[in-house]
Amino acid sequence: MTRNPRSSRPAVTTNVVVFTLRDDKLKLLLVRRRSDPYKGMWALPGGYVEADEDLDDSAMRALEDSTGVAGVYLEQLYTFGAPDRDPRGRSISVAYYALVPSEKLQLRTASDSEAIGWFALDELEPLAFDHNEMVHVAHQRLAAKLAYSTIALQFMPQKFTLSELQKVYERILNEKLDKRNFRKRVLALDQIDQTQEVRRNGSHRPARLYSVRNPGEVQIIR
Amino acid sequence: MTRNPRSSRPAVTTNVVVFTLRDDKLKLLLVRRRSDPYKGMWALPGGYVEADEDLDDSAMRALEDSTGVAGVYLEQLYTFGAPDRDPRGRSISVAYYALVPSEKLQLRTASDSEAIGWFALDELEPLAFDHNEMVHVAHQRLAAKLAYSTIALQFMPQKFTLSELQKVYERILNEKLDKRNFRKRVLALDQIDQTQEVRRNGSHRPARLYSVRNPGEVQIIR
Repeated sequence: MTRNPRSSRPAVTTNVVVFTLRDDKLKLLLVRRRSDPYKGMWALPGGYVEADEDLDDSAMRALEDSTGVAGVYLEQLYTFGAPDRDPRGRSISVAYYALVPSEKLQLRTASDSEAIGWFALDELEPLAFDHNEMVHVAHQRLAAKLAYSTIALQFMPQKFTLSELQKVYERILNEKLDKRNFRKRVLALDQIDQTQEVRRNGSHRPARLYSVRNPGEVQIIR
Repeated sequence: MTRNPRSSRPAVTTNVVVFTLRDDKLKLLLVRRRSDPYKGMWALPGGYVEADEDLDDSAMRALEDSTGVAGVYLEQLYTFGAPDRDPRGRSISVAYYALVPSEKLQLRTASDSEAIGWFALDELEPLAFDHNEMVHVAHQRLAAKLAYSTIALQFMPQKFTLSELQKVYERILNEKLDKRNFRKRVLALDQIDQTQEVRRNGSHRPARLYSVRNPGEVQIIR
């Protein structure tokens, strides 16, 4: 344990994969790099970990600084540390993922990006660094977690219909679900409440609106 | 992205939580520290990440160097980075966990430890650094993964009875399982094969021996 002189230490960063549902697609937040390496390419929001900063706080700050997004569900995903992942020298990145309801979003650009935007997961171009791999791992984790947690509820606005919630599952899993089974399963979770309101939509039967019982919490289902 | 001068970079380490089943208990591997900080206390095997080394390789090397254990199932767990976790200064640790069948183990002590041994998870004393927390997170992950993967098979020797496999589940989950349901479920995974051999044990009916179809691989069950 006497190795690792200060001069050979890797730089440590965090990156955040921010998912939302928009225009009926699963999308993620990217910023355009305005300096080298990968100048002009799209990348995940991120930044260096400060000397006195917890990793979770660092990820939250990176997200807030570069996008204006705050107070969202954030979870550590995986740490990426291939020796050649950054052309400037050894760096490791602790990747996080975040889920936000579309209504919460007020994007702004930060000093190290010249543009910011939402990109559909299924039309993604090559990103800077190993960020495509981070996105892939984040999507896998999200899809896996649908099966054993209430994570999907993080995407929902204050009031929503069961059809809207079903769409969230379908977009993440990229498959159609049976309506009757889905409703039974999701109500059995006992994590969403009927409101007294309905939404009318053209000639369809009015749809009941629901709300999330514990917003901001993700329950594990056993 | 212009912050993070070399002088403020954290040290980066890996630590490994190595589980096995021994004496009918879930146990983990600890080494005794022979220098400060936490001199004389028990800790998880670990070490600094070398300049040109992948994180997975670093964890594998740390494990092999300090214990002689090699070629085992290893998975990244979580990265720990509280600013005060190491009294020597800022350090972050990428934690891994490993599962080994008891028969594979040939322990040896390394330069930075004066003793090495197996400790029952349910009788653990306070460990160095934040290692109790790492153990807690690793146990949670392992228990969760039993439900949706074939991870438990990593604990098994070349040939084993279904009762032995059931004990692995019971020790990890810390609860009794129904024998009939367990057998049905585990055979339905289609990942273990009957051998032509049986094991005789006193006056009991001889028990069929099974083997793992793809040793070293963990299948996700959906």
